[in-house]
Amino acid sequence: MIELHFVPTPNGNKASIMLEEVGLPYEIKLYDLTGDEHLQPAFRKINPNARLPAIVDHDPADGGAPFAVMETGAILEYLAEKSGKLLPTDMRRRSLARQWLAWQISGFGPYHGQAHHFIRYAPEGQDYGIKRYRAEAERLLYVLNRRLGEAEYLAEDYSIADIATWPWVRATRAIEMPLDPFPNIQRWFAAIAERPAVVRGTSVTNTANLSSLRPVLSPEQWSNLFGDKLHATARADG
Amino acid sequence: MIELHFVPTPNGNKASIMLEEVGLPYEIKLYDLTGDEHLQPAFRKINPNARLPAIVDHDPADGGAPFAVMETGAILEYLAEKSGKLLPTDMRRRSLARQWLAWQISGFGPYHGQAHHFIRYAPEGQDYGIKRYRAEAERLLYVLNRRLGEAEYLAEDYSIADIATWPWVRATRAIEMPLDPFPNIQRWFAAIAERPAVVRGTSVTNTANLSSLRPVLSPEQWSNLFGDKLHATARADG
Repeated sequence: MIELHFVPTPNGNKASIMLEEVGLPYEIKLYDLTGDEHLQPAFRKINPNARLPAIVDHDPADGGAPFAVMETGAILEYLAEKSGKLLPTDMRRRSLARQWLAWQISGFGPYHGQAHHFIRYAPEGQDYGIKRYRAEAERLLYVLNRRLGEAEYLAEDYSIADIATWPWVRATRAIEMPLDPFPNIQRWFAAIAERPAVVRGTSVTNTANLSSLRPVLSPEQWSNLFGDKLHATARADG
Repeated sequence: MIELHFVPTPNGNKASIMLEEVGLPYEIKLYDLTGDEHLQPAFRKINPNARLPAIVDHDPADGGAPFAVMETGAILEYLAEKSGKLLPTDMRRRSLARQWLAWQISGFGPYHGQAHHFIRYAPEGQDYGIKRYRAEAERLLYVLNRRLGEAEYLAEDYSIADIATWPWVRATRAIEMPLDPFPNIQRWFAAIAERPAVVRGTSVTNTANLSSLRPVLSPEQWSNLFGDKLHATARADG
């Protein structure tokens, strides 16, 4: 059994979709990012970076003690190797899947994440940040659209690269970035949305938080999510 | 022979250090990010995302046509698999190396990168962005310091995770973020700095750009690096 430490975010859905796709048994442990449970020592033993999602594999391949994995990129590769699915063995396609996975976790995800932050969470008046991250988020959509004009999926066959990218494309609705200019993305997005594993993997999601363009956070919630509490936790045992 | 499409940045040095560590023959093709060569079609055939570094392997394992790899995370994994070096085969250590590699490329790198942007490049007055990214960059240094208090290297043995992280720790000097509070990072940083492959891999670097806290860019250079030219290029063929 795999424990999925989960929040209903695009990153959380990468892991829940992957677990559904490969068919490994798992149990969800739900967190609330506006609270501080993920900042406590118990969770930081699982993920020293105090971010969600993370998994704990209670049946690791070597038969040893439970094994914790942080970072969605590493979770996807771990589950692909464990199941033998969704990461090609052919050298070129394998690297292509990793290239687009790395592109998502190091670029598409972080820049879209910063766009969400500045548009939805930052105090009013951050025009420079909004403009910067909206432009880069849009640029990355053009790159994605172009790739999906050359190939049906990012690494030709459906793979962990698509699973990493799809939930973040889905989240563009929360930053009011329509997909109208991107016909190839629309085709790819719709095809993946219909996969039974994707339907199941996203049905654990409460998308209520995406319906509010600017969520209202208390000072304590802000502190846990973005502020002093988050940073003080790291300093305390650094 | 491997062609290394290179700029003397922390990301560029991940690739140059790795090539020196694994001992594969390579040739450097140097770019200037303030120019627009990397935005042209010739380079975007190598990296459709128009970012540096990238590599082209003229001797791929399958004996086929030259193979291009974008994204430092994927470059490091590709070269590790090609050479059989610096990515453990043991399941746990292999995943640990990938977890800390993913942590670097998706968190440490992007957040430090945004700190560099707001501190060194953005127009004056971006107090919110400076505070946000400085705090997160510092938090990640605490996470790194804590890990390096548990283990000699990120994945216990020296690996691609350290190669990804070290150049970005080196770059903290450019955002005036001293390492004094981080004794474990200092120990690890000094040990890696002495490795002959690291000395060679960074000697291709012109660090002049790091000596100026706020580089002066012409409007055209700004446009290529962060502005309209960069984004128009993506739209033109999206």
